[in-house]
Amino acid sequence: MSLKKKPVTGMKDILPQEMEIRNYVMDLIKKTYASYGFVSMETPCIEHIENLSSKQGGENEKLIFKILKRGEKLKLKEAQSEADLVDGGLRYDLTVPLARYYANHVSELPSPFKALQMGNVWRADRPQRGRFRQFMQCDIDILGEPSALAEIELIQATSSLVGQLGFETFTVRINDRRILKAMAAFSGFPEESYDTVFIILDKMDKIGMDGVRNELTKEGFTASAIDQYLGLFEKVTPDLSGIRYLQTSLAGYLDESVAQNLMTIVESVETVKTAECQIVFDPTLVRGMSYYTGTIFEISIDGFGGSVAGGGRYDEMIGRFAGTQTCACGFSLGFERLVMLLMERNFQGFQKKEKVAYLLEKGISQDKLIAVFQEAQKEREAGHVVSINIMKKNKKFQKEQLTEQGYSEIKEFFCD
Amino acid sequence: MSLKKKPVTGMKDILPQEMEIRNYVMDLIKKTYASYGFVSMETPCIEHIENLSSKQGGENEKLIFKILKRGEKLKLKEAQSEADLVDGGLRYDLTVPLARYYANHVSELPSPFKALQMGNVWRADRPQRGRFRQFMQCDIDILGEPSALAEIELIQATSSLVGQLGFETFTVRINDRRILKAMAAFSGFPEESYDTVFIILDKMDKIGMDGVRNELTKEGFTASAIDQYLGLFEKVTPDLSGIRYLQTSLAGYLDESVAQNLMTIVESVETVKTAECQIVFDPTLVRGMSYYTGTIFEISIDGFGGSVAGGGRYDEMIGRFAGTQTCACGFSLGFERLVMLLMERNFQGFQKKEKVAYLLEKGISQDKLIAVFQEAQKEREAGHVVSINIMKKNKKFQKEQLTEQGYSEIKEFFCD
Repeated sequence: MSLKKKPVTGMKDILPQEMEIRNYVMDLIKKTYASYGFVSMETPCIEHIENLSSKQGGENEKLIFKILKRGEKLKLKEAQSEADLVDGGLRYDLTVPLARYYANHVSELPSPFKALQMGNVWRADRPQRGRFRQFMQCDIDILGEPSALAEIELIQATSSLVGQLGFETFTVRINDRRILKAMAAFSGFPEESYDTVFIILDKMDKIGMDGVRNELTKEGFTASAIDQYLGLFEKVTPDLSGIRYLQTSLAGYLDESVAQNLMTIVESVETVKTAECQIVFDPTLVRGMSYYTGTIFEISIDGFGGSVAGGGRYDEMIGRFAGTQTCACGFSLGFERLVMLLMERNFQGFQKKEKVAYLLEKGISQDKLIAVFQEAQKEREAGHVVSINIMKKNKKFQKEQLTEQGYSEIKEFFCD
Repeated sequence: MSLKKKPVTGMKDILPQEMEIRNYVMDLIKKTYASYGFVSMETPCIEHIENLSSKQGGENEKLIFKILKRGEKLKLKEAQSEADLVDGGLRYDLTVPLARYYANHVSELPSPFKALQMGNVWRADRPQRGRFRQFMQCDIDILGEPSALAEIELIQATSSLVGQLGFETFTVRINDRRILKAMAAFSGFPEESYDTVFIILDKMDKIGMDGVRNELTKEGFTASAIDQYLGLFEKVTPDLSGIRYLQTSLAGYLDESVAQNLMTIVESVETVKTAECQIVFDPTLVRGMSYYTGTIFEISIDGFGGSVAGGGRYDEMIGRFAGTQTCACGFSLGFERLVMLLMERNFQGFQKKEKVAYLLEKGISQDKLIAVFQEAQKEREAGHVVSINIMKKNKKFQKEQLTEQGYSEIKEFFCD
């Protein structure tokens, strides 16, 4: 009676080499955000199925791993549909649980509440290379802070973190959904087609200005709207003067304070940054999630397609679910992507401890054994890793293996 | 449309205060075992339902949270029983996954494999105070080391850990299931009733020698067997000479090497221990799990009922499931118990960072804001926690709250 050896479909066992990097990254995340006053929190991996099906999760709601009711609650024969069999599911993100947690504990939490969550989430996606059905999410959120301070601290802390992970050239791109909308309004696109326009705009980095023009034309938008729109993008620069340009051009469509707010964020983050990154204003940045209400931002590593962190302000969602209006701003780290990139680069940035292996000949006396343990204890107290092993017949092979595992020194102890 | 605010039945949200202790304990566990050469590993939280139902999990197999098949695999109308609906479940321990992992990756792992696992497990137990349906387990296992070195390192590392958590008086109790059996055989109990005898013996610390005698008598065992049996316990001392006494008395029933092995362990651990703990030989220690084949051990904190860590040698289980014979020895930490005890004691043993809160008057100029961020950055680099906040109308209350959160210094910044 032997076990099925492979993990369940789409999930993975994590080997010690990867765990070493994961542990290091988790540690650095905790330390970095803690120094900004963020505190850790955790929710159960199982959520009420009603909470997971509240329409906030978008497409993810189709990917829920559902959990069978237990005991008397499970009435298999009477069940008409899945809903009769299920009362819980594995969380697909950390945002729905955050809203529930905040609603449940608001009186016990500081205000603003600066939360750090690291935990697994599950999505029954079609398995594919590099995408798993269980993966670690890492979310940092500030609840109850309406000012740009929230954005500045989130971006500052996160870019400092990415810098500490040894990524030397990366870009922080910042935009505001209200600017996106004002640009579309100014150009004369009808409000109900903004989403269509933004989906096309989002491809700018791939298909370029001409590609965007073609797709907008295909959708049947007027040439004058398209010209007006792309004219803005041609003139805007990826910096403070770009924002200032839009502040002037979009007068009447854009509240002045929105541009002002964005300038405060870009300028503050630029001045205080500790990593060698570029902070840019990117009017083509869209970010998919519909719940964003203001600033949006993203970090991408130069030379690697796709972002490693993304976030923004979502002032309405928490309130809608928690019952009381609560402004919120968050940043989500692509933990698995970061780890994958570090693995590919054979990351060794963390300080490795000196590793010493002891090999004991079989049959060593009790007195000698104790002397060995005492010596090991001293080395451990001095900060070394000491692994004690019984000497194998094929000692040469054993030593090679230990060297491969990073044991740079090998001490041998014989019976006499 | 508001969310259900409470977590699902029997599971809990973890507040920042508890997270601080949990993170500290997890960190210390990782560091301590790493210094002995243990490496971290992880398996998915979902396991094949067949693996979870392989009879190794005992009573836990009745407590599985089962996961509905997905997509085309789910045929609700044709389903006759639960088994037709389910293909996975949440793991109820870390031992079944360890066996699967080892079988799957043996060629990529060092031998012996010294593994550290920390992860959630789920059991649909009846909810009760202090017992949850999702909880963290922490298992340390050595696979492939037949000698007493495995036991010595596991006990040494674990007692050093418990000592570092500030528990000053605790006891490590050690026994061997082969000694348990030899004592029962020597006394003349029939082999098929050993389990009954051991279940009664296990109550010795609660009901005493007379209580054990009564219960054994009630079970219908002969007075001579009972006298012989309890006579051994009267004479045996909780130390090396106790083991030596049994080595002599049980000659013919107990392999000499078993007693010798146990003496090596007790003596080594006693000599090298770094914490102020007692190492005792306890012939009444039984430990429930049927898969133990040799030494068994347990750590209990003096003055607190129940153990905080338990383990032993289980040389047959991994092989039975993995297909190839693999000796194994493990120690499981009662992570949730340790955290609970530390919470009750208001544990402050970890070095707290200096926490400074900044209060900014609303409307502060951009120049001043940047100066504030730069000052904060310097303090963070010096190792402090700095939390920047907008000054509230009720500043007095705000300051009180920050003080409560551990901010010992509060700096104020005004518009001019």
